[in-house]
Amino acid sequence: MKVSNAILLISCPDQKGITAFVTNFVYKYNGNIVHADQHIDDQSNTFFMRLEWELKGFTINKEKISDEFQSIACQFSMDWNLSFSDKLQKIVLFVSRHMHCLDDLMLRYKAGHLPCEISLIISNHSDARKQADEAGIKFYEIPINPANKEGQEHKEIEILKGENIDLIVLARYHQIFTENFVKTFKNQIINIHHSFLPAFVGKSPYAQAYQKGVKIIGATSHYVTEELDQGPIIEQDIVRISHRDSLDDLIRKGEDLEKVVLSRALRWALQKKILCYGNKTVIFD
Amino acid sequence: MKVSNAILLISCPDQKGITAFVTNFVYKYNGNIVHADQHIDDQSNTFFMRLEWELKGFTINKEKISDEFQSIACQFSMDWNLSFSDKLQKIVLFVSRHMHCLDDLMLRYKAGHLPCEISLIISNHSDARKQADEAGIKFYEIPINPANKEGQEHKEIEILKGENIDLIVLARYHQIFTENFVKTFKNQIINIHHSFLPAFVGKSPYAQAYQKGVKIIGATSHYVTEELDQGPIIEQDIVRISHRDSLDDLIRKGEDLEKVVLSRALRWALQKKILCYGNKTVIFD
Amino acid sequence: MKVSNAILLISCPDQKGITAFVTNFVYKYNGNIVHADQHIDDQSNTFFMRLEWELKGFTINKEKISDEFQSIACQFSMDWNLSFSDKLQKIVLFVSRHMHCLDDLMLRYKAGHLPCEISLIISNHSDARKQADEAGIKFYEIPINPANKEGQEHKEIEILKGENIDLIVLARYHQIFTENFVKTFKNQIINIHHSFLPAFVGKSPYAQAYQKGVKIIGATSHYVTEELDQGPIIEQDIVRISHRDSLDDLIRKGEDLEKVVLSRALRWALQKKILCYGNKTVIFD
Amino acid sequence: MKVSNAILLISCPDQKGITAFVTNFVYKYNGNIVHADQHIDDQSNTFFMRLEWELKGFTINKEKISDEFQSIACQFSMDWNLSFSDKLQKIVLFVSRHMHCLDDLMLRYKAGHLPCEISLIISNHSDARKQADEAGIKFYEIPINPANKEGQEHKEIEILKGENIDLIVLARYHQIFTENFVKTFKNQIINIHHSFLPAFVGKSPYAQAYQKGVKIIGATSHYVTEELDQGPIIEQDIVRISHRDSLDDLIRKGEDLEKVVLSRALRWALQKKILCYGNKTVIFD
Repeated sequence: MKVSNAILLISCPDQKGITAFVTNFVYKYNGNIVHADQHIDDQSNTFFMRLEWELKGFTINKEKISDEFQSIACQFSMDWNLSFSDKLQKIVLFVSRHMHCLDDLMLRYKAGHLPCEISLIISNHSDARKQADEAGIKFYEIPINPANKEGQEHKEIEILKGENIDLIVLARYHQIFTENFVKTFKNQIINIHHSFLPAFVGKSPYAQAYQKGVKIIGATSHYVTEELDQGPIIEQDIVRISHRDSLDDLIRKGEDLEKVVLSRALRWALQKKILCYGNKTVIFD
Repeated sequence: MKVSNAILLISCPDQKGITAFVTNFVYKYNGNIVHADQHIDDQSNTFFMRLEWELKGFTINKEKISDEFQSIACQFSMDWNLSFSDKLQKIVLFVSRHMHCLDDLMLRYKAGHLPCEISLIISNHSDARKQADEAGIKFYEIPINPANKEGQEHKEIEILKGENIDLIVLARYHQIFTENFVKTFKNQIINIHHSFLPAFVGKSPYAQAYQKGVKIIGATSHYVTEELDQGPIIEQDIVRISHRDSLDDLIRKGEDLEKVVLSRALRWALQKKILCYGNKTVIFD
Repeated sequence: MKVSNAILLISCPDQKGITAFVTNFVYKYNGNIVHADQHIDDQSNTFFMRLEWELKGFTINKEKISDEFQSIACQFSMDWNLSFSDKLQKIVLFVSRHMHCLDDLMLRYKAGHLPCEISLIISNHSDARKQADEAGIKFYEIPINPANKEGQEHKEIEILKGENIDLIVLARYHQIFTENFVKTFKNQIINIHHSFLPAFVGKSPYAQAYQKGVKIIGATSHYVTEELDQGPIIEQDIVRISHRDSLDDLIRKGEDLEKVVLSRALRWALQKKILCYGNKTVIFD
Repeated sequence: MKVSNAILLISCPDQKGITAFVTNFVYKYNGNIVHADQHIDDQSNTFFMRLEWELKGFTINKEKISDEFQSIACQFSMDWNLSFSDKLQKIVLFVSRHMHCLDDLMLRYKAGHLPCEISLIISNHSDARKQADEAGIKFYEIPINPANKEGQEHKEIEILKGENIDLIVLARYHQIFTENFVKTFKNQIINIHHSFLPAFVGKSPYAQAYQKGVKIIGATSHYVTEELDQGPIIEQDIVRISHRDSLDDLIRKGEDLEKVVLSRALRWALQKKILCYGNKTVIFD
């Protein structure tokens, strides 16, 4: 049986001794570090760290680690998060009518490349019901219009809270959440935007790109914040195009980007490899 | 001796028979086509073509080709341009204080990769005088400030006209030309902008990119139009960055992009491989 | 209803007048060219062309075009192929036990991005039966071992002939065909090899790449010839890796490449955009 | 004045406590860590680390740090190297007749992007003398032929030893060193090979790539070992090509790759960001 690892994510004001204290903590209790990475942001003088160690042989009980670590955390004024590799995150997929990202994620899920539990699929349309049914995943069709949006989001929040959802993945979900919804799930909503942000914010980015005559198109996965398409960027990728490519070609080529970029971002989130600071991310890949 | 080729660039409303008439013209007078490429823009129903044939054995005199072709051009309402591969274009390089693009272009020029004549270098500073002197190229230092800009541009226009300049290359020239200057040299000014346009228009694009937290930076070469950084895009390229990269790293990595992207765009322009339409380009590479 | 286009692929010794004669032929019978591209290989002095025109209004009957074109073809000693955009090619997918390419192709097929008819799926294992059944595609399980290979291939050839298969796609099929099989379907078999060919030929290319310590891995789609992994390359793509990537990471990242590269190559083949010459390809994209 | 940093590179069998002991060492003597990165190779169970800390305020004298660290190094059986950011490495550039990499490195050197001292330039031809003279760098022309190679290398070794050269950079040097030379400078010779290794080893890789019909070409920077073009790879990059590209185009496009790839590899070496293990590298970028 694969033994669980502990994963510690830390951010705090930089000062001397942080790494020494944290790695001593693990060593003192006989932990074997399998991954350690850190970063210092010079502008804000902030220290970031991801530490992963094996629990096999670790002399503190899983349940007590947080308590024991508390004093170090206090000493350095840390924002910190402790998780365990055997505790799968529960996620929900939101989708509208473009199924390529959902289909792609389902294939990766089945192949074991996404260490999580897809608890449910929510859509403002019915198209994805088939995929949900085939995979044995609960499906909610929750139509949205300007008049009912607030109420429907209320319902969604209740469902997500009821299911203890850790992460919300917008796999081409074409509704804009209210500020209330976004705030309820701060740093928990991952979106795929089909452009190379910050270029081509909002609707029809491929049509915008086509009109503009760019020679490269992109896709961007980011956390959702109150401001549309402006949240911390997790991952981006691009593909070259030419004057020979029609708008349909852009869309088709872009879909391949969207799938890969979203799946990379999601995988990092599931592996607890992302730290947000300000409007940026540190990716401990 | 390498024999000259004729290069014909055409754009016109699409209709049946264009290619047949044009290629018949070349065949009739015993021309050997070495490159032919065409494109049809469906949105505007516009036909574009680049045709290159050897003049060796062609039975019309170089000087008479335009006259002979005129009737076909009229029949199809063509915008067209005939040039010859042995007639080097005369270009001017504008630069301010960042020398990397200028240095790079000079190396390519010496290596024979830029089929042109660099007639002069103009700068609003004195830094590039050394490079110009070493290469035996005329150098004009023309300082610009808000008060003298119009007058100085007048002077520049006179110089450029006097030298019969075909192409103006802005190798990191940090002054914005007036509308008058831009209109005087429509589709003759090539700029390198150090961002992935349309993202990060204007000043300090690397600082903007750093602040935004993008995972990829880019560079864009484009024709200069009246609207800042909005002209037809010729070429773009990108490089991945991460949270580990400081602003200095972005600048350093970006410089490598700028050099390559500008040199590709310039080379295409010198080889008459670019056609502008609306705010886009066709690149017959 | 979308009207059919005629697509003409030509290769022949280069000489004056080819383009003129061919485009005149289309013009004479009132055809409207929608795509034309040509290439001359200087080393072998070979001319290549792809010409696509609308049959709407074309004054030769579809069935008679070949006859009428014959004299031009003879005049220039052409290898040529005429096809029609409304005549879908019939293809077979071969797969072994890695399903990611097959799954990916099936999704693209359903999305309408692969203009063909997938007539059957053949495997030396039973794993793909489920996918075939769900899609309503005939499935043959044909196990292969050194002793039965010749006989089984005989059976496969009969099936493929019986179904009038135009194109054979090896979507991670891990058997090496005999020379007889390959010769029977010259330039009709497309393979995806999970390396950046010519590096890492043969078995376990990811393990080879991992052992070698390369910083970039790739995938290659190519036509199958008698020599293993040495046929004309259609498309390649790459992704960066680092020392942090395990062999499993290479495999996972590589799968994304394989899917995209194979689907691009297949799409070009279906659109008749590929010409083979010697051991190379011209891609009229 | 910029204060110096200490840089510690470590590799040793992995076991518990390494990071704790090492970071404690720095903390105990009041060092401020500005960069820390580590990696564990699962296959060989080897631990790798790069640690950089400010010497400002560090309570051990620069000269004594090694002595003090010795006991930890012994305890964990470390291979280790301590260097200081203000101690510039002395490098030599070897070049033959293609000047693009040399020219490029000289520009980066002048721009301050290569923190080193270029002590001399050695060539088997005279072409680079001009560049050396202009930059005020010593130049040795040391012609090589099969008969004199051993003797000339002897001379080279003497010169390099005499100048206390830390790093040998082969900027397109087209001679193969003897085993003796390579062994004398183990892990000190960086080469740029103009192909995507391991494809196209040895002579004329662009011609090989052209003949093969690849759709992507590459460049590789690697440490030189006894086996030709087989040493640990430091960096690779690629560019797309098509059937339209002639061999000259491949060479020209490839040169841009070579310059960028070599300069990246060299910069990492100068910043002590590379660790070799077996035939691979860890890059702590």
